[in-house]
Amino acid sequence: MQLQKQLQADQACIEAALAQYAARWPDHGPLREAMTYSLMAGGKRIRPVLTLAVCRLFGGRAEDALPFACGLEMVHTYSLIHDDLPCMDDDDFRRGKPTNHKVYGQANAVLAGDALLTAAFSVLASAPLPAERVCRAVTVLAQAAGPAGMVGGQVLDLLGEGKALREEEVIQIEALKTGCMIEAAARLGAIAAGSTPEQEEAAAAYARSIGLAFQIRDDVLDVTGDAQTLGKPIGSDQSREKSTFVALKGLAACEDWIDQLTEQAIESLSPYPEADFLCALARFLAGRSK
Amino acid sequence: MQLQKQLQADQACIEAALAQYAARWPDHGPLREAMTYSLMAGGKRIRPVLTLAVCRLFGGRAEDALPFACGLEMVHTYSLIHDDLPCMDDDDFRRGKPTNHKVYGQANAVLAGDALLTAAFSVLASAPLPAERVCRAVTVLAQAAGPAGMVGGQVLDLLGEGKALREEEVIQIEALKTGCMIEAAARLGAIAAGSTPEQEEAAAAYARSIGLAFQIRDDVLDVTGDAQTLGKPIGSDQSREKSTFVALKGLAACEDWIDQLTEQAIESLSPYPEADFLCALARFLAGRSK
Repeated sequence: MQLQKQLQADQACIEAALAQYAARWPDHGPLREAMTYSLMAGGKRIRPVLTLAVCRLFGGRAEDALPFACGLEMVHTYSLIHDDLPCMDDDDFRRGKPTNHKVYGQANAVLAGDALLTAAFSVLASAPLPAERVCRAVTVLAQAAGPAGMVGGQVLDLLGEGKALREEEVIQIEALKTGCMIEAAARLGAIAAGSTPEQEEAAAAYARSIGLAFQIRDDVLDVTGDAQTLGKPIGSDQSREKSTFVALKGLAACEDWIDQLTEQAIESLSPYPEADFLCALARFLAGRSK
Repeated sequence: MQLQKQLQADQACIEAALAQYAARWPDHGPLREAMTYSLMAGGKRIRPVLTLAVCRLFGGRAEDALPFACGLEMVHTYSLIHDDLPCMDDDDFRRGKPTNHKVYGQANAVLAGDALLTAAFSVLASAPLPAERVCRAVTVLAQAAGPAGMVGGQVLDLLGEGKALREEEVIQIEALKTGCMIEAAARLGAIAAGSTPEQEEAAAAYARSIGLAFQIRDDVLDVTGDAQTLGKPIGSDQSREKSTFVALKGLAACEDWIDQLTEQAIESLSPYPEADFLCALARFLAGRSK
């Protein structure tokens, strides 16, 4: 199957590149080990795969986009480490392994997260691309991950705990907490390829749709019992009292919504006949049972 | 006095710019307030002052270096917030005010730090300078603040707690934890000005000398009872059991060492006759009684 083959190739490429970056970090106490423990803990690498795929779609070389893809994955990883901390979601396990602070202690987990977030920008800036593209990538990633994006969503999520939120509020929180980074993954691919603004916006629209579909699917899986931690973003702890899409709309309406969003995602790329992989990826993510 | 006048002008300019950046952050729950609380909590702004001064020395316009100066100060501020957390130094007060987590809670303090670190790179990337310079600034700041710099030093510092460290070890920890960011402050000014490599290296050498002198002065002040928190870097809690320069060498030898380092700093800038302000700043920092 074409999708699986390309997906596996991209995943392997990303794993290898991440391992290379990790090997270059200096050996100060347990820091490199703590950073690497979470960075190399598996996951489907959906975000960096998206970066490579969008870069290819718009005529770029996937290897030129690798530093962007890996930097973004480091930011995603730091967010998981900090989210698992006792003062946040207080999780003991992630992807079947003890969480970072369970292994290295809270202080080192905070610092490993800080170091991954910081190193991500070194990695971005090392991309073999024109400086203008690298600068835009730094801006896009920092805005998606910062107070107007992921961290902002996390604060709102904490604030909403135990409250009955309206649908728009849940959508806003998910869009900030998870959607912004998925959109950034697509934009970074477009930027690496030197795409036109129209191309970048099409990729961003695709990513917004699959990002929301992905979150709804997560909520559905939590309820239907197939829950797992496929790159689940910050704030995904089921033990916390929170408003979910399923609680708000019911399972059947969520399934319809996922279908609609997936079609929207595919429609966003209709001007680009070579978007087969991204269309198949959207359908795959929408239907994933694990 | 010329030094004080320029220092105050630069400090005012930095305060105003930081306040402007803070005003633009979105209003998600307590996030902006928590970020701003620590960012605008005073301090002498020595690092960003250095950036502006080095930029001017090499013929740049200080206002062009402001985004670099402010981004670096945001990174410094995040490090203070995280360092004060209960799992780190567990400090209740900083610069006479309750620490961030005392006011906003631990989760928000972690996230406010994360947001400041992330926003710093947006701010850097917004500098009205050629993209090549901005990219280099991103690399320099990320490396100084990351696993090979400040965070690495913090991990080593935690690891060394309660142990009797050798002089080289204390120097290494201080160089990573504080020195790297002070050196980066000088480099960012040189980069903003479009300096030659020789000019940048001279500024970096100056900064390394004043950075170490500054740390020794902090240790001396801790002992002589004049301790205060003039931009004291992470890991500066006196209550922790740690090896200090004073404990290792004695007060008199520390005073001599500060003098030597200050002369070295000034010597580094001898090819540049217009370095009066930086020379006066080095003497001022070396002799500061508060």
